[in-house]
Amino acid sequence: MVIYESIIIMIHNRLSLFISANFKARLTRIGLNNARRYSTSDVSLEKFTSLHSATISKKPIYYGISPSDVAKRASVVITMLPSSPHVKDVYLGKDGLIEGLDEQNFFIDSSTIDQSVSKNVALQIINKGARQVDAPVSGGVVGAEAATLTFMVGASTEADFLRSKPYLEFMGKNIVRCGDLGTGQIAKICNNMLLAISMIGVSEAMNLGIKLGIDSQLLANILNTSSGRCWSSDTYNPCPGIMPNVPSSNDYEGGFGNTLIAKDMRLAVNAANEIQATIILGAVAQQIYNSLSKTPGYEKKDFSSIYKWLNERSGNKEN
Amino acid sequence: MVIYESIIIMIHNRLSLFISANFKARLTRIGLNNARRYSTSDVSLEKFTSLHSATISKKPIYYGISPSDVAKRASVVITMLPSSPHVKDVYLGKDGLIEGLDEQNFFIDSSTIDQSVSKNVALQIINKGARQVDAPVSGGVVGAEAATLTFMVGASTEADFLRSKPYLEFMGKNIVRCGDLGTGQIAKICNNMLLAISMIGVSEAMNLGIKLGIDSQLLANILNTSSGRCWSSDTYNPCPGIMPNVPSSNDYEGGFGNTLIAKDMRLAVNAANEIQATIILGAVAQQIYNSLSKTPGYEKKDFSSIYKWLNERSGNKEN
Amino acid sequence: MVIYESIIIMIHNRLSLFISANFKARLTRIGLNNARRYSTSDVSLEKFTSLHSATISKKPIYYGISPSDVAKRASVVITMLPSSPHVKDVYLGKDGLIEGLDEQNFFIDSSTIDQSVSKNVALQIINKGARQVDAPVSGGVVGAEAATLTFMVGASTEADFLRSKPYLEFMGKNIVRCGDLGTGQIAKICNNMLLAISMIGVSEAMNLGIKLGIDSQLLANILNTSSGRCWSSDTYNPCPGIMPNVPSSNDYEGGFGNTLIAKDMRLAVNAANEIQATIILGAVAQQIYNSLSKTPGYEKKDFSSIYKWLNERSGNKEN
Amino acid sequence: MVIYESIIIMIHNRLSLFISANFKARLTRIGLNNARRYSTSDVSLEKFTSLHSATISKKPIYYGISPSDVAKRASVVITMLPSSPHVKDVYLGKDGLIEGLDEQNFFIDSSTIDQSVSKNVALQIINKGARQVDAPVSGGVVGAEAATLTFMVGASTEADFLRSKPYLEFMGKNIVRCGDLGTGQIAKICNNMLLAISMIGVSEAMNLGIKLGIDSQLLANILNTSSGRCWSSDTYNPCPGIMPNVPSSNDYEGGFGNTLIAKDMRLAVNAANEIQATIILGAVAQQIYNSLSKTPGYEKKDFSSIYKWLNERSGNKEN
Repeated sequence: MVIYESIIIMIHNRLSLFISANFKARLTRIGLNNARRYSTSDVSLEKFTSLHSATISKKPIYYGISPSDVAKRASVVITMLPSSPHVKDVYLGKDGLIEGLDEQNFFIDSSTIDQSVSKNVALQIINKGARQVDAPVSGGVVGAEAATLTFMVGASTEADFLRSKPYLEFMGKNIVRCGDLGTGQIAKICNNMLLAISMIGVSEAMNLGIKLGIDSQLLANILNTSSGRCWSSDTYNPCPGIMPNVPSSNDYEGGFGNTLIAKDMRLAVNAANEIQATIILGAVAQQIYNSLSKTPGYEKKDFSSIYKWLNERSGNKEN
Repeated sequence: MVIYESIIIMIHNRLSLFISANFKARLTRIGLNNARRYSTSDVSLEKFTSLHSATISKKPIYYGISPSDVAKRASVVITMLPSSPHVKDVYLGKDGLIEGLDEQNFFIDSSTIDQSVSKNVALQIINKGARQVDAPVSGGVVGAEAATLTFMVGASTEADFLRSKPYLEFMGKNIVRCGDLGTGQIAKICNNMLLAISMIGVSEAMNLGIKLGIDSQLLANILNTSSGRCWSSDTYNPCPGIMPNVPSSNDYEGGFGNTLIAKDMRLAVNAANEIQATIILGAVAQQIYNSLSKTPGYEKKDFSSIYKWLNERSGNKEN
Repeated sequence: MVIYESIIIMIHNRLSLFISANFKARLTRIGLNNARRYSTSDVSLEKFTSLHSATISKKPIYYGISPSDVAKRASVVITMLPSSPHVKDVYLGKDGLIEGLDEQNFFIDSSTIDQSVSKNVALQIINKGARQVDAPVSGGVVGAEAATLTFMVGASTEADFLRSKPYLEFMGKNIVRCGDLGTGQIAKICNNMLLAISMIGVSEAMNLGIKLGIDSQLLANILNTSSGRCWSSDTYNPCPGIMPNVPSSNDYEGGFGNTLIAKDMRLAVNAANEIQATIILGAVAQQIYNSLSKTPGYEKKDFSSIYKWLNERSGNKEN
Repeated sequence: MVIYESIIIMIHNRLSLFISANFKARLTRIGLNNARRYSTSDVSLEKFTSLHSATISKKPIYYGISPSDVAKRASVVITMLPSSPHVKDVYLGKDGLIEGLDEQNFFIDSSTIDQSVSKNVALQIINKGARQVDAPVSGGVVGAEAATLTFMVGASTEADFLRSKPYLEFMGKNIVRCGDLGTGQIAKICNNMLLAISMIGVSEAMNLGIKLGIDSQLLANILNTSSGRCWSSDTYNPCPGIMPNVPSSNDYEGGFGNTLIAKDMRLAVNAANEIQATIILGAVAQQIYNSLSKTPGYEKKDFSSIYKWLNERSGNKEN
């Protein structure tokens, strides 16, 4: 019998289990940010639960000894895992969620993974009698802290979507159903592929113009009021000094790392290859971010640091 | 002695001369559109002037027999020519404007050409005693008909910019000074390079998502409210049926042709090469539009037709 | 008890089974070419065996009713299948080879598939007690007919390699051990990725030079005696008329189709993504061949037809 | 009256003049290498001539005070200048060769510059009554020292070609007429564009294979006996340790620098843009070498160092 609602968050290869009899109240207090701070990379689950109950909410936290154990104890399970093999392992592997589920279980997978794997895993879970949706998230650390994340939900029925919504609303502001199973993944990688392309495009255009002698703020203004306008130019400009509170004005610290966008671009290329879709700029952008994520000094920087890379690899008017 | 204000518009290799004692009043009546309709590709200049005075404004129109003759007759001359060699020829060639100018002449070149040529020509003209600004334009045929064009002005003094403004305001809504001579060209090619990249990016993302099974309108909505948002997605979406009044919903007729954006991209690549700036996606986008402008069925289509091209060159979910 | 040696060749989704008590003698008589001519796309297996024994060798041919049945009847099984899912299905699926094997079985998989899948399947087979090598092939239809194919063999022991060699020598001229399991696949995709890049490079260089006015044969000679020399220029020149017996001089018929190289390029990109290797030109070449394989008039052409595509998408000196 | 034959070599912006009554004998003694060693970057022309006559040939060397002066003193003038503006200046500028020429002058321009500039300059010189050919060179420092350079000659008549041949044979082994004026430039940039593409292609293929676990020497052997074979793989392999006497085995010192190939690629892109030829991989290769020529640690390295760059920007099998 499932008695608890639960959240599993696996970050950087470590499985953290949160079980709560009062899920809603707890999520507002824990938040993704606190969860990370108390992740099991630092402490054991036992220590975490005692630490947590002492310092955060004064309420107990429970945990399972394996995904299948969690599925037995919690009706609603939210997972956020780093890659396709992790999801296959936690859901379908030995002692996976699939081994502990019954028809009361509802799984929300917020991992960003291959859309074909996401759909395939969900179909196997649903085939065993439980329900599942994919709900990848965008908005970054800032969005997580402010609970303004966007969740893109793929659900085989509207009922599944509606069931996921109240849980996701504790963490996000926009909860959108994108269609059938897997479409959450598709929407996310399509958006992020376009984002990567736009960010490189803005960086190339800003860098070219500035090197040719135009004032950076003036050029940003022109782009933002012309047909070049985009989120990467008007909200997250990669040129230092244009906007105050973006990574480019803070030495490209924080934000959305080159490693993460490189991973999303791999997923986009994989998805395109599965159906033989042509994505020329997407393919080049993937290679740019793959190399940038391994360039000394750029590994841990925000993805807008492509501007800095281009700036360093360009001559000047006097050349 | 300069007695008239004048406009020279060279479209597709033919020189059309308009001379008017009452320039402002005439421009509002003639408009770029009428000018084109009566271009000298159809009629001789003599016939054009008589035709014009009879049917449009009941007022006489004058013409010069060469650019140098026009410079002698008109104080303010506006040119809009197809490429760098044309500008060099009309301004600096035999019987060019430079041979007829005196210190009262003011030249406004609205051609989109190589920024280095633009600046170099203007410096030679200014060296001879007249004044000149570069003022490339964006906004397309629609903007020209509605007089809502944007002019990006490069001027060596604020006074030159202010002198150009009232003339440009008859044709455009936004008249922006971008800095010194040549910066109008720089701003334009930077914007259009970013535009080309964004348009291809939106097309790749929309095509990928739709082929993977997500609803096109839903995907457009997600992009437009997420970090993929850009002018090409929210104002000029390349996927047919998303927006009613854009070329993609009219079989890619009208708008901004593949040939024209291919030309602007060549200018961007030339400018980057002059200063050895790195523009990876820009270089690929240039090649994409160069090839598209020569692909059967696409030569005369709007630049958003890259979506159609990608769509035809992609498999489907069932593949 | 295994009593026969056998070859399974699956071409275009159809399974053709050849079983022979006298494998070596038969292969020389059947050849890949005859096998294809009598493939089960046209006739039933029963009809095929009777047809075969009557017309080709006067000796009987046997067949199994499933891969597992074949594994039981034949000790040596050669497979050549179109993609990773087919290999997983034939080897590990229901009624797959894995269900019929014993320690006498030796499997030679000549499919070109994902290197990670190839290795993984072989490890599972070996784990069950049989032996397996990967042996993808290059050389095309011409090489198959002339028995001059190259086989790139990945084997976990030298003994496995030596065991495969006599069988492969009936079909090929160069049988090379590339290292451990999976290295046959790696060698093949690395070579073919380089081939795709070189072919596009030669096509771009030849087309550019010819359009600029240099004689095609002269340019080919210069490239072939300079640092641009490569197999695609000196053995398989993509410009019509340079060499007599290559597809470019036969309207790009025959040879190595755009669809096939597009598939190999997908495998290369997949392999690169698995280890996060940067392959910029490889990624662009993949997109070029993906789109070419879906361009009307190019779907079934040889991969050197990229020259024709470029030629049609380029201006001329007079432009 | 022209009394001497002469060679002008401008290297890195400095003009070195050599005048000799006995040109052939002198070239064999001076050689490009000695000329460089005594270039005017170190010593004045006066000092150079006295130094030269004392140490090398015991014969006097003469010099002119300007290009026009050289044209007056020497009938045959060979130039090798770094870029298009230098050629325009030395040939057509103030005190340029054009001001000193008469019908006895024969100019051989071995600079690698824009093919359109090359042709245009030659036509102006010929129009004034002298003769000229373009004769860009390949083979590098090694070829210059060994006098095994290749000269690609563009000449408007066979007679001009034959006149240039004996002079070029003192420096090179292969002297090829490519066609009319400018075709020497075209042949050179087409070859070098293909070379750049092949070198990146070999580097990507070798790096991918090695990272996937195949032995580097084995992989090189396979490529060199398969359809991936090319000069960059079998003569100048970019992977350290494959071949003993190439830059890759000497920390990428010597050879053909990233800056030089980046310049040639700009010429190729310029030429393609002039006639609107599509060169997709060429355009990407240009950007790769533009950025590499400005990447810390790579500015002065051989162009095969792209292998090292890729190697550092790729994960490993264990990732």
